[in-house]
Amino acid sequence: MRSSSLALLTDLYQLTMAQGYWKSGMARYEGVFYLFFRQNPFKGGFTLACGLEEVIRYLQEFRFEESDLNYLASLKGNDEEPLFGRDFLAYLKNLRFSCSLHAVPEGSVVFPHEPVLRVQGPLIQAQILETPLLNILNFQSLVATKAARVCRAARGRPVLEFGLRRAQGPNGGLSASRAAYIGGCAATSNLLAGKIYGIPVKGTHAHSWVMAFHDELDAFIAYAEAMPNNCVFLVDTYNSLQGVKHAIEVGRRLRLRGFDMVGIRLDSGNLAGLSRQARRLLDEAGFPQAKIVASNDLDEYRIEALHEAGAVIDIYGVGTRLATAYEQPALGGVYKLAALRPPGGQWQYKMKLSEQPLKTSTPGILQVRRFWGENGYEGDLIYNELWPGFQTHFSTFDGRSCNFAHLSSKDLLMPVFEHGKQVYMPIDIHHTRAFASEQLALLPDKYRQLRPAAVYAVGLEPRLKTLKEQLLAEVSAREINR
Amino acid sequence: MRSSSLALLTDLYQLTMAQGYWKSGMARYEGVFYLFFRQNPFKGGFTLACGLEEVIRYLQEFRFEESDLNYLASLKGNDEEPLFGRDFLAYLKNLRFSCSLHAVPEGSVVFPHEPVLRVQGPLIQAQILETPLLNILNFQSLVATKAARVCRAARGRPVLEFGLRRAQGPNGGLSASRAAYIGGCAATSNLLAGKIYGIPVKGTHAHSWVMAFHDELDAFIAYAEAMPNNCVFLVDTYNSLQGVKHAIEVGRRLRLRGFDMVGIRLDSGNLAGLSRQARRLLDEAGFPQAKIVASNDLDEYRIEALHEAGAVIDIYGVGTRLATAYEQPALGGVYKLAALRPPGGQWQYKMKLSEQPLKTSTPGILQVRRFWGENGYEGDLIYNELWPGFQTHFSTFDGRSCNFAHLSSKDLLMPVFEHGKQVYMPIDIHHTRAFASEQLALLPDKYRQLRPAAVYAVGLEPRLKTLKEQLLAEVSAREINR
Repeated sequence: MRSSSLALLTDLYQLTMAQGYWKSGMARYEGVFYLFFRQNPFKGGFTLACGLEEVIRYLQEFRFEESDLNYLASLKGNDEEPLFGRDFLAYLKNLRFSCSLHAVPEGSVVFPHEPVLRVQGPLIQAQILETPLLNILNFQSLVATKAARVCRAARGRPVLEFGLRRAQGPNGGLSASRAAYIGGCAATSNLLAGKIYGIPVKGTHAHSWVMAFHDELDAFIAYAEAMPNNCVFLVDTYNSLQGVKHAIEVGRRLRLRGFDMVGIRLDSGNLAGLSRQARRLLDEAGFPQAKIVASNDLDEYRIEALHEAGAVIDIYGVGTRLATAYEQPALGGVYKLAALRPPGGQWQYKMKLSEQPLKTSTPGILQVRRFWGENGYEGDLIYNELWPGFQTHFSTFDGRSCNFAHLSSKDLLMPVFEHGKQVYMPIDIHHTRAFASEQLALLPDKYRQLRPAAVYAVGLEPRLKTLKEQLLAEVSAREINR
Repeated sequence: MRSSSLALLTDLYQLTMAQGYWKSGMARYEGVFYLFFRQNPFKGGFTLACGLEEVIRYLQEFRFEESDLNYLASLKGNDEEPLFGRDFLAYLKNLRFSCSLHAVPEGSVVFPHEPVLRVQGPLIQAQILETPLLNILNFQSLVATKAARVCRAARGRPVLEFGLRRAQGPNGGLSASRAAYIGGCAATSNLLAGKIYGIPVKGTHAHSWVMAFHDELDAFIAYAEAMPNNCVFLVDTYNSLQGVKHAIEVGRRLRLRGFDMVGIRLDSGNLAGLSRQARRLLDEAGFPQAKIVASNDLDEYRIEALHEAGAVIDIYGVGTRLATAYEQPALGGVYKLAALRPPGGQWQYKMKLSEQPLKTSTPGILQVRRFWGENGYEGDLIYNELWPGFQTHFSTFDGRSCNFAHLSSKDLLMPVFEHGKQVYMPIDIHHTRAFASEQLALLPDKYRQLRPAAVYAVGLEPRLKTLKEQLLAEVSAREINR
């Protein structure tokens, strides 16, 4: 992989705005931005937050290098004069990440409109980080959510992630493997993800192995000779059921050597019917332990349909449709300014208006309080951390009234960096995966169904709702209805 | 970015097969694989091949490092014994890329079933490369093709790529920016892509800039003060037409300072209607040169609809739907074994069968001959390079008869590596972009339309077709119909 500073992994407009703030005397203003999603992906009932560890690594290394500054110095405006001044570039050279960052732990279930991450600090820094934060969190959260859905459809059977060849380049593949594992996948085919992240890896052979030999039986025999402790025979190169019979024949030879075949893989045709026939052949031949792995453009809907069609499949291999989140390949996460103050001044609350009221952002130093009872999570309240105490009687974004006074609760956003100093050490990926699984289990089933039966309750604390309405009226009066 | 060898950027099964070949005495067999797509993406009439330069860079650095081998040594089979033997790992340690690689130049138009890239060399190496080659070429070809479609819809107006925040992580964003530029985009917002690839970059300010000030006019004034040579005012933070009026007011102040505003950007609402009203306001105020930039979830279909609705837009900004190829986020490129020979032996032709005849691969040392006449490209013939001469009277995959005897022709696959030695130096990205544009211009319009009016002619040279049919019958008799 290319070794380069990633400080320029951002949109040009972040740096033109940064120079603008700097020249306008606002470099020392403090801003608060928050990152949120407006909709759960895949018409689902939740989003699994993922990517924080990569964000932390990004911020640890955030620094403009000489080559970055030389590049910026080379950019020209429409008068062919430099776009960036020397003094501003000198400022960037000395810039060190000094913001405070709060975020929900990786593997948390999150919902539309609520802050998943909050950055507070020098306006310029907080602004520049918009693009990389969205780049990392949007994609990983999307794939982790997809993986959780696929694993749910698989009803406890292991799901293997095979998507590298269809992912967005090397890093897309790595991020996809990581997020898929956190979302519940059991393993990946991607060796580099195994090496870097410690994710279990799985794989045996492809059609090309079978094609390289005179016939399928020869190919299986040769594979078993070479790799007796890793035998999942891909049986559909020519005819799947004939392939199962060849696998059985080789399975018998393996036993004579003290090994057992792991199973067979179906990769085309009617997977439900073939899996039943394969199961019968394997059982009758004395291989009831042999697993049936199935793959071929699977996703949560196809896996559900396979169950309904009576498939007998032990392990699912899922590639393209997971690694690209085929059905909806982008999560529309956004990052909005919510408050601003000049040095020594008061906080000014900020919000982004929109013709669609639900696209209007929320002002404040936002925190999320999650409430739970005997049946798991009940709802989330977004509140302004500056105001002590809060009312637990509120209305949700879709107009339902909630009173959570009787429930247990906790804040979701936790400190990750304080004034640039890292104060949170991510847990390892296996514990993150276990945490995600626990969080999903705490979410009532009606929100976890592929087509959810209910909308999770999220609303604004009443004083925050009032602030938002007042600010909306004020901005509308000033900018729109004049 | 992480600095690591990318030799492990592959699926585990490539290496288990590699060990299998090695143990089976086939390490010195020579294999020929080819990479092809089965369908043009987006229901379109062509695919723009992209990614070769990244492939070359990957192969230049292809080598298993100590840490890769240590990782492989740690993997276990189902008996908890090591999956890979020490001797095989020692073999990998000494493995150096020594294949020959042929490929179509980046920016070529290519079509279903024909080889885009061909690898010939030691079976193990050629096998292992499947995953990284697909990972790089699938995604970049997908995005380059999408960009070409978007640029066509824009009818010569510049298209800016803004997709970084929705791409698959840092590298997904870089690859997307590169491919979008080659496909015809004029610039990107992605500074790192600008720095690394030399792609022009564009950007001015976001809604957050406007929100950071008391009101929009103040915000525009401050921006113009700070960045007078880079003024595209984003006018829809509150009310787009009011925003245009503010832009005009600031444009007048800019002129007093000897600068001119570049234009305004519309990012929400009815872009067709707003663009007409904005144009009128700008023209009436004496700013006929000011460009109208439009963005907001655009793609080729929406741009076409804007034209039909009478929009007056000079520049399009396209993000999510380009960088993720939203409509179809994966290109189903595959990589198949087509011939194999033992040391000193004869070539054995190989093909992958499928229940769907069109999914059956083609055997041979494949090359593509492209034919053209006065009206541009007429069709492509796939032939076996081992057989001198070929017939130009053939039938296409969809059963049409062609005779191209009277046409000019050339081979598409050119040597890139010969026995591991690089023999082709990629042209720079700007020339690649120009080449792609020329290639598209040579493709008759009926194949370039968003919904193509005709299918480009691709077929097998008659002797190759006969070989394929014979091999199919032979394999079927041996493996299926027995």
